[in-house]
Amino acid sequence: MINIRLIIKALGFLLLVEGISMLLALVVTLIYNEYDTNAFAVSASVSISVGAINILFTRKISEKMNKREGFTIVSLVWIVFSFFGCLPYILSGAIPNFTNAFFETMSGFTTTGSSILNNIEELPHGILFWRSMTQWLGGMGIIVLSLAILPIFGIGGMQLYAAEVPGPAPDKISPKIKQTAKMLWSIYLLFTVSEMLLLWIGGMNIFDAVCHSFTTMATGGFSTKQASIAHWDSPFIHYVIIVFMFLAGTNFSLSYCALKGNFKRVFADEEFRFYLFFIGFFTVLIFLGQLVSSYYGVEMAFRHSMFQVISILTTTGYATADYLLWHPLLTILIFTLFFFGGSAGSTGGSVKIMRIVILLKNSYYELRRMIHPHAVIPVKFNKHSVDPKIVTNVLAFFIMYFLIFIISTVIFTGIEPDLESAMGAVATCLGNIGPGIGKVGPAENFLYIAPAGKWFLSGLMLLGRLELFTVLVLFTPTFWKD
Amino acid sequence: MINIRLIIKALGFLLLVEGISMLLALVVTLIYNEYDTNAFAVSASVSISVGAINILFTRKISEKMNKREGFTIVSLVWIVFSFFGCLPYILSGAIPNFTNAFFETMSGFTTTGSSILNNIEELPHGILFWRSMTQWLGGMGIIVLSLAILPIFGIGGMQLYAAEVPGPAPDKISPKIKQTAKMLWSIYLLFTVSEMLLLWIGGMNIFDAVCHSFTTMATGGFSTKQASIAHWDSPFIHYVIIVFMFLAGTNFSLSYCALKGNFKRVFADEEFRFYLFFIGFFTVLIFLGQLVSSYYGVEMAFRHSMFQVISILTTTGYATADYLLWHPLLTILIFTLFFFGGSAGSTGGSVKIMRIVILLKNSYYELRRMIHPHAVIPVKFNKHSVDPKIVTNVLAFFIMYFLIFIISTVIFTGIEPDLESAMGAVATCLGNIGPGIGKVGPAENFLYIAPAGKWFLSGLMLLGRLELFTVLVLFTPTFWKD
Repeated sequence: MINIRLIIKALGFLLLVEGISMLLALVVTLIYNEYDTNAFAVSASVSISVGAINILFTRKISEKMNKREGFTIVSLVWIVFSFFGCLPYILSGAIPNFTNAFFETMSGFTTTGSSILNNIEELPHGILFWRSMTQWLGGMGIIVLSLAILPIFGIGGMQLYAAEVPGPAPDKISPKIKQTAKMLWSIYLLFTVSEMLLLWIGGMNIFDAVCHSFTTMATGGFSTKQASIAHWDSPFIHYVIIVFMFLAGTNFSLSYCALKGNFKRVFADEEFRFYLFFIGFFTVLIFLGQLVSSYYGVEMAFRHSMFQVISILTTTGYATADYLLWHPLLTILIFTLFFFGGSAGSTGGSVKIMRIVILLKNSYYELRRMIHPHAVIPVKFNKHSVDPKIVTNVLAFFIMYFLIFIISTVIFTGIEPDLESAMGAVATCLGNIGPGIGKVGPAENFLYIAPAGKWFLSGLMLLGRLELFTVLVLFTPTFWKD
Repeated sequence: MINIRLIIKALGFLLLVEGISMLLALVVTLIYNEYDTNAFAVSASVSISVGAINILFTRKISEKMNKREGFTIVSLVWIVFSFFGCLPYILSGAIPNFTNAFFETMSGFTTTGSSILNNIEELPHGILFWRSMTQWLGGMGIIVLSLAILPIFGIGGMQLYAAEVPGPAPDKISPKIKQTAKMLWSIYLLFTVSEMLLLWIGGMNIFDAVCHSFTTMATGGFSTKQASIAHWDSPFIHYVIIVFMFLAGTNFSLSYCALKGNFKRVFADEEFRFYLFFIGFFTVLIFLGQLVSSYYGVEMAFRHSMFQVISILTTTGYATADYLLWHPLLTILIFTLFFFGGSAGSTGGSVKIMRIVILLKNSYYELRRMIHPHAVIPVKFNKHSVDPKIVTNVLAFFIMYFLIFIISTVIFTGIEPDLESAMGAVATCLGNIGPGIGKVGPAENFLYIAPAGKWFLSGLMLLGRLELFTVLVLFTPTFWKD
């Protein structure tokens, strides 16, 4: 049997964290003195109270957590956070509709960035701050999850990175998690503050600088402006954001190495090299396409190409240009990037570079295996042979990802009959990106989608964010058998 | 080094076969006495002469064929056949343009069924007969290839079926191939003649009955009518074709068992059961959708649903209705069937049921493996554990298939900017189906596509028909190294 009280206890602690974060937003509302102060006071009180009650009633529990509780908590926390996190929107009247508020909050915590808002500039500062904060918290959560917790459960090849960080030994949740988490969060905070200062120097006001540094580092993509980053006509700001989106899509344990001066280690990392290669490859391709097909000047063509490539590839979702207005060939190149994603151990979503590298290599090796059927030809990654079990896991992940994409698109055409829009909405939510193609492009939003569609997409965001298996495993009978 | 003279010899023999087939078409032209007689006389002479010269100059070669020659011949024969096979179209003036004629012929030999013709009824009988014949020959070739030759090379999990037929032992091409081929061709011929008689009884004239039985058994889909099977408003004809499309999409070694009375063996086969299940599932889904959304009566809704499902799933490509005019949800359900394909060892193309079953099972088992990371949980198929090497091979195939689909779609939007049409054209050619979606739906054709696009699609037909790896392996350096 599953230990429900242990789950309640863990969720209680996490709710405390959420409530305290709301207090930060409360401070913002007090500074700007708009109509959202009460909403945050109430929301924070509710979250903290529920959290405290949970802890109070389970304070005597001190059993060790096992896999079953771990998986359940990880899946539940995003849902619970979204339920409590949408209170400020509803109570302030900023997003009075529950479905819309939940969608926006889930999109925040999963660092997706798809929005139902079409009046962003009208909202009070506290709400906008909280909206960015949900992404920042989600980003924090996901780094710890992917670098410290998921490797223990052997999810989707993430165990390849288990050795990268001073993390816990496999198969037991050790106190080292705390140490790893602390290290990762320090880098996260450092990057956030650095970006904030640079954006401020570049001419953003301090509020926008804070909000955008939050959503950049989370590869979230929520903006305080309806036009997203296109609102600022400043190359400096664009390039600053390009750099920090790039960092946010890099494995945080590599950033740790870089900060310690070990650049050799960084550039030796195969995932990082492919990450650079893909960015370079698509930027050049689209840049050349822009030169031929658009009226942009050379610098602008380069900047818009690179910005959109990095924004989509890292699953951030900011826009300085509407790629749907480009030549269709360039639009579809961008759409293929929906299936890349940042590095493993970054805040990026989607498939992830590490998996793409392994599956490309395996496909090539498979040809060699055909020629030499009796030879054992393992996949090499970072100069080590990859355990065939991990290769199978990565392949299974990729196939699962595509099956879910296809089946979801089919189902979603029942709600949005336009195939391109349905594909765009499903791909962007499953990949935690933000904008889609068709009717949900960078200049549009998700408001018009029927409630059932919004709940469906919210589910996809969660599924994608938790590397599919974490959620899916809960639906297998084996998982619940003793 | 590769033994080029051995390849020339083999291709010489095969060209003789093609030339002799053209003589059959020549007989048809003499019966109908139209303008295409000379074209076939010349084409047959050229093919037979070239074939004979090849054999003459290599008659002393008697070395054993190895893998390298095998792969090369298999890839080359489809190209060589298409070059010679398009002569009748060009010489008769039926398709004067070389690119168009080559596309039509490659579409024939690969049993794809995509056509550039928009005036089918105007063509002489000899040309229409040859057009159907290319598919019938292609279908014959592919059964032998997939059940007798590919298993030896271990392509795409086909070795799973190596044991099914009285075929050759792995790693050497034994004279048993001849025996297997004979057995398979007998069944192929028996089914073709049976269908022909039934169609004739159903009211088709004998010419149309022959042509359609040729293209049904090959899961090809070329019709002698512009409106495809919708030309005949006869439920009997529709149901006869449904039955034979189903048989053409069934593993021919299972049909052999059935003809010998061993039905237990047939229904115990897991691929066959899933084949039945998928057909049933999609037919019922689309049938229910039709009842709600269309004006068809119950019988007509059922017939059109089942016909289109089986036609696309088996990769035949006939049409009794234009699925693009259905509710978008039903259209996209049909589009997902583009990625199923018939059974392994049938004339069907695309991914194939066997692979889909293995990858679905492996995905589910992967969840179980996550829960029990130390247990060895192999995939079971037909009650036997599948060698992990084969599982990896199947997964790699599927991923390669999707990568090729995606990359090709991106490239193809440079030629046809409409995303839906590009996806449709690429998916249908890669899967050897026939009609696509968008501008290349069942009521349209491929004539308008730019020449570069037609060559590109011809390449995809070949790639798909030869199970990807057979062709791709030729482009790896390892293959050419000693």
